Order: sequence, then structure tokens, then C-alpha cells
Amino acid sequence: MKIRLSEGNGGEEMQSLIREMRAAIGAAGKWKNTDNDSANIQLGNEQLFFTTDSYIASPIFFPGGDIGKIAACGTINDLAVTGAEPLGLSLSFVFEEGFDKESLNRILGSIASVSRETGIPIATGDTKVMEKGKLDGLIINTAGVGTGKRALDEPIRAGDKIIVSGGIGEHSIALLSKRFEFETDLQTDSKPLIGEMRAIRGMIKQAKDLTRGGLSAALNEMAGRNSIGMIINEPDIPIKRQVSSASELLGLEPLELACEGRLACACKPENANDVLKALKKFDPDASIIGEATEGKGAILKTRIGTRILHNPRGSLVPRIC
Amino acid sequence: MKIRLSEGNGGEEMQSLIREMRAAIGAAGKWKNTDNDSANIQLGNEQLFFTTDSYIASPIFFPGGDIGKIAACGTINDLAVTGAEPLGLSLSFVFEEGFDKESLNRILGSIASVSRETGIPIATGDTKVMEKGKLDGLIINTAGVGTGKRALDEPIRAGDKIIVSGGIGEHSIALLSKRFEFETDLQTDSKPLIGEMRAIRGMIKQAKDLTRGGLSAALNEMAGRNSIGMIINEPDIPIKRQVSSASELLGLEPLELACEGRLACACKPENANDVLKALKKFDPDASIIGEATEGKGAILKTRIGTRILHNPRGSLVPRIC
Repeated sequence: MKIRLSEGNGGEEMQSLIREMRAAIGAAGKWKNTDNDSANIQLGNEQLFFTTDSYIASPIFFPGGDIGKIAACGTINDLAVTGAEPLGLSLSFVFEEGFDKESLNRILGSIASVSRETGIPIATGDTKVMEKGKLDGLIINTAGVGTGKRALDEPIRAGDKIIVSGGIGEHSIALLSKRFEFETDLQTDSKPLIGEMRAIRGMIKQAKDLTRGGLSAALNEMAGRNSIGMIINEPDIPIKRQVSSASELLGLEPLELACEGRLACACKPENANDVLKALKKFDPDASIIGEATEGKGAILKTRIGTRILHNPRGSLVPRIC
Repeated sequence: MKIRLSEGNGGEEMQSLIREMRAAIGAAGKWKNTDNDSANIQLGNEQLFFTTDSYIASPIFFPGGDIGKIAACGTINDLAVTGAEPLGLSLSFVFEEGFDKESLNRILGSIASVSRETGIPIATGDTKVMEKGKLDGLIINTAGVGTGKRALDEPIRAGDKIIVSGGIGEHSIALLSKRFEFETDLQTDSKPLIGEMRAIRGMIKQAKDLTRGGLSAALNEMAGRNSIGMIINEPDIPIKRQVSSASELLGLEPLELACEGRLACACKPENANDVLKALKKFDPDASIIGEATEGKGAILKTRIGTRILHNPRGSLVPRIC
């Protein structure tokens, strides 16, 4: 058996590979939520949170950002959505021999500006170099640590509302516009979600940032982890006209497009309006898109009927983040 | 300017690249020892330690170990030598499409066995896949977190003794024997050094694990960080006959060969014999190899005179860890 491209897609095949790998590695000791965006462990009176992600985006520069920006934001977001206040990031570069230092400086500048903007420092790092031809450009790994009073892992129950923080798919389309050289005024949605999470974390049960596999993968993962179903109202999903038209052009499912600065969260129905109001201060496109139900899996209610919101399968587009 | 292979060698060029990158990224907030094997920050009554490393070893299997074993041990060691008790590791894989799953299972088995042996769990992880031809095999990143009462950062002073925990260069020669297909009974020295560090951390001032750039890079870095000199007695450096003869054959400087399970440490002269005794329980080759002096840089005393122990320069051998 060989590793397939589809096993990096954020959807069903990847989740299955990760399950196999976790089984091979064995027990995670006192760490909890080890299948979530970040894991946590009791430390003194607090929870310590820990997460990691490697970034292989191609191209490395795209409208509104670059691989450095998504590497910094992505890991901050993995901490933030699980309830943590980030303490610091690590930064590990693997370069292809001959990688251009001017590009490196732009990438470092992006990371520095996320770090300054959020007040989250880079604590430690590493660099390696591979021979020319053995790696395409560079790979960045960021890990992150944070602290918090509790992990956001309260079970989601039927009737809880599902809210998304802004328009979906913009990162994918912005990056693909550079890869396939088509015109768009879209920019990556990449941004740190720590402000949003500080504003809502007291009012929600769980959150996930939308990355590979997009809204579909995130909602399916949330439903699966909580053994619940979901009904999502398609007309309530915020999506820019440019995203839907480019998706149609490229033959992609917009609900499966990666975002790098959007989250989905679940809260009790009585908190939904306050959560929405808080999120709208950051992005007017925030929207209540549906609710949790008894049962299993996510159902999409469209204008003309209902269909299953499948967990993404297949290769989608590789190297989007 | 382009990234050169020599900027990944563990010596002077790499240290210079890392200095440039750190300057571009800016302040590290309250993190301390950010230029050491792991950084630390006050958290409650304790220090939280954090480190990261990416592993690009080629070949991925070699006598006595594989890329998984060095990825787990290397990060445990970076925590251990700075005074931490490791709490958990993260594990991020980037695969080339088509990577063999049987090899993956062997690698995961190695990581699992280091995790079981040390009781240090894998807390969190990530997987990515790059298209065939865009990456040679796989890259593993491990980050690690740990806690401790204090960082091992007491300044080294003239007269302090320098001790090494075992024979040098065995990892490099074992790996190169597979790469260049020559016969040797050497195995990688890759191992977790947490037992050693638990035994000696109360008696020493500082420690470093020997990785890329070997003993020369580690001693030069230690001397530089502490603004001291060192006199090292060459005949006291433990080195297996097979390492010196293979080095001669390959035209390599044995003191610059990477190890993956050896440390150098500095302690007050009155503690040196106790530290040595403790280390010898793990490896009879442990040895007091010299002492700190006033001045700058490391001097090697050989049987016939003295020479400067240079910080490694140039490409050495790429992808050794």
C-alpha cells in the first residue's frame, strides 16, 4: 500500500490514515482531545494546549498572503478554537537548496507581522536544507502552546446552533487563482481568529477552524465526534459570488474549499444571537447556518430539497495550505 | 542570495542563517533561552519548555534505527538537556505521494517504542501529502513540551569541567554505511537521554545534545553562549576505532560527525567525578574531556600540540538527521 494524495485532503481518507497512525503509536497518556485541533493536559490549575501543523502550500505567495502567514495563523487558530490563549509558536523550516533568500525574508516578514499583531511570540525554531531537486521550495512546520481554564469540549446536543464566522472558500480560490493564472479580486481569508475566540469562547460549546476539506470536513468531524446529526441551511452559508463562480469554473465543491481564517462553532440556542453579534463585529458575513439534530451525519437543506453533506473524498486540490 | 546546503550543517553558516531569521522575526516576548535546544517561559510555579526539530535523514532506515527513532529521541533530548521533564511530543508527517505504508509502519513502530520506553506520549499530530517528485520520501517534524523547576542555564566559568556521555560520531558513520554501502558493525547512537539527564541535572550547569556539527559545534556553541574558552584533551574524547577509521576513509572530521544520543555538559570541578560516575552507569565510555578557560573559543590539545577546535563550516554530509 502506498500513501495517496487523497490521504492529505482533510477529508475521509486523511482521517482514516490518521486513525491508523494513532493506533500504531499507542496511548497518549494524560493528554485529552488528542483527535482535536489541539490536545490539552492538566498543568497546575490550568490546561496546557499543544498543536502542530506542516504547511506545503504551492504557490507560496498568493493574493493577500503567503505560506508564512498561513503557518502562523493556522497554528494560532488551532489553539484558539480549542479554548486556549496562545503562549508561543515554534517555527521549523525545511528548505530546498537554492531557495531564494528574498522570498524567505518576505515570508519571515509575514510571520513577524502576525506575531506583532497578536502579541504571540515565536519561541523556538529549527532549519534544515535538502539537496536541490529533493524538495519543491520549502516546508514550514509551526507547533504552538497555549493555556486556558478549560478545553472547549462540552458535548453538542440536538437543538444547538451552528454558526460560521465568515464567507467560505476564499483562501482556496485566491491561491488557485495564482496557480492557474485566472483573474479574481479575492484574497486569502487567512487571519488569526484569537480575537473572535476571546469574544465568544465563554458562550460556545465547541469550535473548529475550517481548513483542508472546508466547511464540509469540519461539520462532519464535529458531528462524528459528538455522535450527532446536523441540518445545515444552504442559503444561510455565507459565500462570495466570486467563490461560487470560480468553483463552478474549476469544477470544485465550494463547501469543500479550504479556508485559513474562518471557524464554525456550536452553542446553546439561547446564546446564538449573542455569538452571532460578537462574530459580526469581526466579519459582517458571520451567519447561523443550521443546528444539531439527533441521528448521524450532516444534511444540507437547499432551496429545492435536501442532500447529504458528505465528508470530502478524493484528491480535491493538493497543497492548498 | 540563495540558501546553501552548508546552511543546514549545524555549524557556522547555519548559526548565522538562524541569527538572521531570528532578527527578521523579532521579539520573543517572555520566552528565555530562545537560542538554546529548548526555550522556556514561567508558567505558574514552573518553567514550561518548548522545542521543535524537522528530520530529513536519508536513507530513512540505517543500522540500529530509522528516521522515526531519531525524530522522537532528538526532541526528547532537546527538552532533557535544558532541564525539562518532557510532557509530550507532537508529530507532523509530510509524505511524498506513493510513500510505502510498510515503511511508515516500521517508522511508527520505532516512535511508539521510544514513547513506551520513556513514558512520553505523542499528544498531537498532522499529516500532509505532496505530489510524487516534489519531496524525496518523507519529512518528520517533532515538537515537544516539558516542565521543570528551572532551566539549566547557569553560566559556565573558567575551571568548570566538560564531560561527554559516550563515544562520538556513531550515528553519522552508521547512517553513511547504509548510504555508501560499506561494511561496519556500528549502529546509530540514537537514544533518549532523559535517564542520563535525570541522574545529573542537579549536579551540572548546562548540557547540550550533540547533533549536526557534532562535538565541535556543540562545544563552540557552549563556549560562545558563555563567553568562555575551552581546552579539550583529544586523547580523552571517546571514539570507537570503527568511527575513526571510517572517518579517515570518507575524509570526514570525526569531531564534526553528528550523534543522536550523546550529550556534553559542564559542571563545577567538585561535581565532575559524581557526574562522570552517574553517566558511566549508562555508558562506560563517558569521559571528562576538558575544562572551561578564560578567553574565547575551544582549543584541542592533541598528543603532539594544540590546535583550534573550529566550528564546522561547509557542507559536511547533508541529511544526516
